[in-house]
Amino acid sequence: MQRRIGAVLWPKLQCLQIYGANTDVGKTIVSTLLCSALSGRKDLKTHYLKPVSTGPLDEADNSHIARFVPNIHSKTLFQFSQPLSPHLALAHDNATLPDSQIQQSVHAEFSAYAQAGPGIALVETAGGVLSPAPSGTSQADLYRPFRLPVLLVGDYRLGGIGTSISAFESLYLRGYDINGVVLLEDDVYKNVDYLREYFEKKKTPTFGIQPPPPRDTTSIEKDAKAMQEYYNDTGSSRPIQDVLETLTTAHENRIEKLHAMPQQAHDAIWYPFTQHQGRTKEDIMVIDSAYNDDFAAVPKAASPSPSRPPKTESNAPLLQPSTDASASWWTQGLGHGNPTLALTAANAAGRYGHVMFASAINEPSLNLAQLLLTHHKNPRLAKVYYTDNGSTGMEVGIKMALRAACVRYGWDHRDGGKSGNREDMGIEVLGLRGSYHGDTMGVMDASEPSVYNDRVEWYKPRGYWFHFPQVKLQRGQWIIDAPPEIASACGLDTAQTFSSLNEIFDLQKRDNSKYIEYITATLTDLVQKQGRRFGALVMEPVILGAGGMLFADPLFQHTLVTLIRSQPTLISPTASTPPTPSTPNSPTQDQTQTAWSGLPILYDEVFTGLYRLGCFNCSSFLQSHPDIIVNAKLLTGGLVPLCTTTASQSIFDAFLSENGDKGKGDALLHGHSYTAHAVGCSVAVESLGGLVGMEGGGAWDGFKGSWARGSAAGTSRSDASSESGLETNLPVWSCWSQDFVKEISHKSSVSHVIALGSVLAIALKDEAGSGYNSNASISLREKLLETKEGWNIHSRVLGNVIYFMAGQRTTREYLWGVEGRIGGCID
Amino acid sequence: MQRRIGAVLWPKLQCLQIYGANTDVGKTIVSTLLCSALSGRKDLKTHYLKPVSTGPLDEADNSHIARFVPNIHSKTLFQFSQPLSPHLALAHDNATLPDSQIQQSVHAEFSAYAQAGPGIALVETAGGVLSPAPSGTSQADLYRPFRLPVLLVGDYRLGGIGTSISAFESLYLRGYDINGVVLLEDDVYKNVDYLREYFEKKKTPTFGIQPPPPRDTTSIEKDAKAMQEYYNDTGSSRPIQDVLETLTTAHENRIEKLHAMPQQAHDAIWYPFTQHQGRTKEDIMVIDSAYNDDFAAVPKAASPSPSRPPKTESNAPLLQPSTDASASWWTQGLGHGNPTLALTAANAAGRYGHVMFASAINEPSLNLAQLLLTHHKNPRLAKVYYTDNGSTGMEVGIKMALRAACVRYGWDHRDGGKSGNREDMGIEVLGLRGSYHGDTMGVMDASEPSVYNDRVEWYKPRGYWFHFPQVKLQRGQWIIDAPPEIASACGLDTAQTFSSLNEIFDLQKRDNSKYIEYITATLTDLVQKQGRRFGALVMEPVILGAGGMLFADPLFQHTLVTLIRSQPTLISPTASTPPTPSTPNSPTQDQTQTAWSGLPILYDEVFTGLYRLGCFNCSSFLQSHPDIIVNAKLLTGGLVPLCTTTASQSIFDAFLSENGDKGKGDALLHGHSYTAHAVGCSVAVESLGGLVGMEGGGAWDGFKGSWARGSAAGTSRSDASSESGLETNLPVWSCWSQDFVKEISHKSSVSHVIALGSVLAIALKDEAGSGYNSNASISLREKLLETKEGWNIHSRVLGNVIYFMAGQRTTREYLWGVEGRIGGCID
Repeated sequence: MQRRIGAVLWPKLQCLQIYGANTDVGKTIVSTLLCSALSGRKDLKTHYLKPVSTGPLDEADNSHIARFVPNIHSKTLFQFSQPLSPHLALAHDNATLPDSQIQQSVHAEFSAYAQAGPGIALVETAGGVLSPAPSGTSQADLYRPFRLPVLLVGDYRLGGIGTSISAFESLYLRGYDINGVVLLEDDVYKNVDYLREYFEKKKTPTFGIQPPPPRDTTSIEKDAKAMQEYYNDTGSSRPIQDVLETLTTAHENRIEKLHAMPQQAHDAIWYPFTQHQGRTKEDIMVIDSAYNDDFAAVPKAASPSPSRPPKTESNAPLLQPSTDASASWWTQGLGHGNPTLALTAANAAGRYGHVMFASAINEPSLNLAQLLLTHHKNPRLAKVYYTDNGSTGMEVGIKMALRAACVRYGWDHRDGGKSGNREDMGIEVLGLRGSYHGDTMGVMDASEPSVYNDRVEWYKPRGYWFHFPQVKLQRGQWIIDAPPEIASACGLDTAQTFSSLNEIFDLQKRDNSKYIEYITATLTDLVQKQGRRFGALVMEPVILGAGGMLFADPLFQHTLVTLIRSQPTLISPTASTPPTPSTPNSPTQDQTQTAWSGLPILYDEVFTGLYRLGCFNCSSFLQSHPDIIVNAKLLTGGLVPLCTTTASQSIFDAFLSENGDKGKGDALLHGHSYTAHAVGCSVAVESLGGLVGMEGGGAWDGFKGSWARGSAAGTSRSDASSESGLETNLPVWSCWSQDFVKEISHKSSVSHVIALGSVLAIALKDEAGSGYNSNASISLREKLLETKEGWNIHSRVLGNVIYFMAGQRTTREYLWGVEGRIGGCID
Repeated sequence: MQRRIGAVLWPKLQCLQIYGANTDVGKTIVSTLLCSALSGRKDLKTHYLKPVSTGPLDEADNSHIARFVPNIHSKTLFQFSQPLSPHLALAHDNATLPDSQIQQSVHAEFSAYAQAGPGIALVETAGGVLSPAPSGTSQADLYRPFRLPVLLVGDYRLGGIGTSISAFESLYLRGYDINGVVLLEDDVYKNVDYLREYFEKKKTPTFGIQPPPPRDTTSIEKDAKAMQEYYNDTGSSRPIQDVLETLTTAHENRIEKLHAMPQQAHDAIWYPFTQHQGRTKEDIMVIDSAYNDDFAAVPKAASPSPSRPPKTESNAPLLQPSTDASASWWTQGLGHGNPTLALTAANAAGRYGHVMFASAINEPSLNLAQLLLTHHKNPRLAKVYYTDNGSTGMEVGIKMALRAACVRYGWDHRDGGKSGNREDMGIEVLGLRGSYHGDTMGVMDASEPSVYNDRVEWYKPRGYWFHFPQVKLQRGQWIIDAPPEIASACGLDTAQTFSSLNEIFDLQKRDNSKYIEYITATLTDLVQKQGRRFGALVMEPVILGAGGMLFADPLFQHTLVTLIRSQPTLISPTASTPPTPSTPNSPTQDQTQTAWSGLPILYDEVFTGLYRLGCFNCSSFLQSHPDIIVNAKLLTGGLVPLCTTTASQSIFDAFLSENGDKGKGDALLHGHSYTAHAVGCSVAVESLGGLVGMEGGGAWDGFKGSWARGSAAGTSRSDASSESGLETNLPVWSCWSQDFVKEISHKSSVSHVIALGSVLAIALKDEAGSGYNSNASISLREKLLETKEGWNIHSRVLGNVIYFMAGQRTTREYLWGVEGRIGGCID
């Protein structure tokens, strides 16, 4: 088992990385000068580390250091004989050296240095900032997990101004702190003068260093002597001392800031979804940076309080890897600190900034709209509407649906209702209990009363929400658990058992006649007897997230959609039944495949969509397409807010005015300033393109294969009734291992478990009754936050439910470790 | 008058920019090879342009081209004798050469080439991608306005992999399209093999080129002959032909895409605030990129329709600069395509991606919160709450205010009202008529019925909105225009005249007793007689944006705030009058300076704040601080969505639960997934820091000085009654010139004009009655969109109002041109 590595920060070990703007700019000379300057220090040990070196051993950089500064500790970890770039030197030697091996070895060195007492460690890279490492990865990417403070050795030669700044930019967009730039002085090109002024604006001090004497080719001894004098003199000179002081100050400031941040945040920040009463700075976790699946965070115990000042003698690291198990509030997909997404964002910012979207078009926004329309494979969808987050996108979706229904059914919300002396509810929505569609007040009204909206002064429930049967894994057994209300109404057992999750999703083989009866009876009562008017069916398909990771029986949701569509008179007695296609299974789209019927069906896929549950969308899970779909969260792969509400032509047409250009008032008068911002759209195109490519390339086939076990043989199902674009034999899978999930479901403290796609949720038994107000899972969350073997897990809870969410690039090896830790913490 | 330059794209003139990854990587060799390959083409003229060259004339690159490819057109624009980087060569010659002069000269060349018929133009840069131009600006920044497609000459030497990729990244983050990479082959380092694979992932084809023969030092003639053979042979070889084909295909694809985009957008996009009935692709403007104040856009007339195919013989440019006069929906501040903001965004993306914010803290989010608290200079403000846009931030602000009022006054929105048999309105807000606070349904309820919310099914007006007097410049005269409702109630003239805008803002010298009477009477009626309960005063200070750029009399808004604060019994008969400070003007904050009184006062500064109207916030304009302030739009300088709702401690405290940790339900249960995203917060820190620095550095002193003319001498006003942090002698200014604004106000078609900060709004006379449904300003907007002298103005209208908004870095010179164009288009 490899050690989990991440950002490196020991208060008493100042680690530094020496990067070069190019090869041959004097990295080793600068390193030797710094070592020379440090060699007299009694208070700290100096370590020089060259992880990878190429060329003859006696010419290696640490040999150079050892020769001129013999009294410090210097070391090369991997040496290859050919004087070439490491990736070629390895190929020449027929060797392989994966990144992880270098990272593990370097980290082991740091650990050893930290144990050895106060010190400073200089890590010299090979070649330039983006020169290839042995595996072909660039230097800056190879060492990014550590995110060491950088001393950049600039290029003093002709052209060196440009290469120095470009090197700076390449480091900077990979999230590095560049604490100083140093370069050899040159009287002709004077790069240091230009760069000092330039980098001052970037708050990066720049230092010029006396260059070494010209090589004395007449005598090796004389040359060595001259160099020794140079190192002694220049090493003790002002500029080198200034470099060291600057770097040390930056190190100390960073630590001070990390210690101060919890209190400062406690003072200045009003946190979302947080009861602040009784909270202290100890409740705030400092995230210094993040990489792939991990935060680099200050472990809670390491935050000093006034009563418990930081132990200055401590050799514990201040930062540790912490698994981001909420996928940063469900957004994360392609890994934190992803350099491709960073560069893509920068390109859009550099090309556009943000540009006006109304009546205009830019390439990223158009490309994203086309990509979504293509990959949703939903013949109903035709138009993409942009907003900034799931909540605003759902506001738009509900506005779209209500208007379409009102136009078709001739309802006017301003008519005061038709229902006589009862309080008219206006136009309402249908949904499921436990739904959550966002925090803006309009979409709050689309959920039933709950703790979320109880104290919102303007909240008004506007809908009817069905009880629904839930999928659960309980003591190793997949079941569908029907709440009493629905079980008695349907004449169903409260719990039906299934051999596998696949069997549950094999909708064609299951009988939904009881569901049809139940839904028909309920709607008849609501519409015919109570006179209520519904304008949309709004639901999160398959998993209701914020409501507590409730796994809805897909057959129930399927039945709700198809029944409302095929029996529109359930919604409006005057509605006509949709025309049956003239030629069934016709390859051309008929109206039943595109126009809405009964009610506009709105899928809130803000959380569930874009591969969070394993598929691009959930239509195939439910064997039915929505008329409107909302996507957000994973849309930008976990970088910036963006949301799309994609709707059918028949919804769009409801906003066309007969008054032509003068009918502004009939248009959808909604639009945020940053609508379809280029940065978000560019990143989304890159991110979604990446995810689609991963699926096409079989990136998740291992997970899929392991979940196929125990399921019915993949016999081809009937698809006569399917809408086009619906895959009927879709794989149901999770990146969480089936064996682990089953094992957890047997634990005594566990009520049940669910897993689908990258989501794992564990409902704990809670004597006091479950729900958002429950605190049952908090002790488990705290246990997982304890650092063991140098890492911990940061998770979020929803009442008695604790959940874990992987990214779409998270590896099986990584999850292995997480599963082990979780398993060990649950009783 | 200089020509306005921008992105360059002539369909029949393929322009290309040759950048080098470093100096001495073979840019001129590659250029010569391409010229050689093109020299035989009869169908097009080849132009080689070296804008700036250093070193002896006979060694200049165009001399090299002229020697080896004599039959093409080659030219150097600026030659300096010293073989140094241009910025040093100039210094040596004691010369200056501003960027604009180079840009103008290069653009003039392009124009001449385009007139000369079909052709291809190669523009070779000096040194590497970021090597300094004569002024010190980098090459990539100097030529960015043109955004020419790039052929990057990579570095074939040791270290060249890294420098080539870094050069690529520096170009990419400045928004360039890099259409190809070419480098000389080297058998030892084989950089081309690595880079081909690497850039393939970036969709950039990479080509290896046979290097030239080694220099023959024995004979100049022999050497020249060998080079001539090399150019002839290699120029006609496959790789060079492939390079040319690749670049030409990219050029053609770009043009094809630009032509296709309007139809594709028309098909796929549902536009915000747009009535689509009758719209066609001709209504959609294609924005290829943007830079500083301009879009680079396809002028409408240039969009070919099926009935009017593109004239293939046309030598008109396909892209033209179009002034972004809506500041991209009011967001733009630091210029489009700002490389500093792009790099800042990339750094945050590379360091974090997005990281969970609840119970955690990251540096950019903390820094931004602290920066806002510092610069608002409002002793009331204590806590920053993050959301994604103005609408969501206002939802939060209203939730905050309503709860605080309910807690203090013991109101429970669930109690069904106390008003007997009338329909209870619940808890409402006070505001001004014409307010607009966003598009989500909750904040829509905070505005009075209007065309914006008329068709929103769930809209319910929840408030009372005051008529208010407006500031207008009419026929050269500043007036305050009171609507009849308020004029008769107050016994005021409908129009009072003022000598200057400064006089209007000199609140201490003006009499507000009539306003006090009017507001007192109105509130007494609402609260005492009608029994209505108000939970907040919500308003856009000074200028109500979406309502039609309504300039409210600051004295009226001031009076509303201070009256409610000092007379809380106007709101709740049980409220106590706030304690008077024990020591007036005490340096320590007393309770009247921090706790809310009467009502929580909420300023919607989404549009007005952060220097849009010339100040960090509008508190000094109104001589009163809010208890809650919402900022967005300019917050990120025009890059990505982000919003802050900043509130006082006394508002915050209303959400503290007596149930401690179990009182989750009492917390503000609001929070979007990307809350306080690192990219947005980093960019905001950079952007706001920049704006604050500009103010401190006197960047707008010229504007301020010109608006001080005609105003009362700056006598020191009494500030005994002021809250701390309020500047009493603040300058009232605009970047639009006072003379121009007055001139426009005299035009016969103009009703009145307003100008403040970077906002200019012109209300046109509209026989049919003004308002959002008016189309009076559309013909002016269309006239401004016509291209003249190679540029046009893209503006937005609000009913009969057309407005123009500059960025915070827009220059007087630039505005001069815009003012001239506007003045010429208005009757």
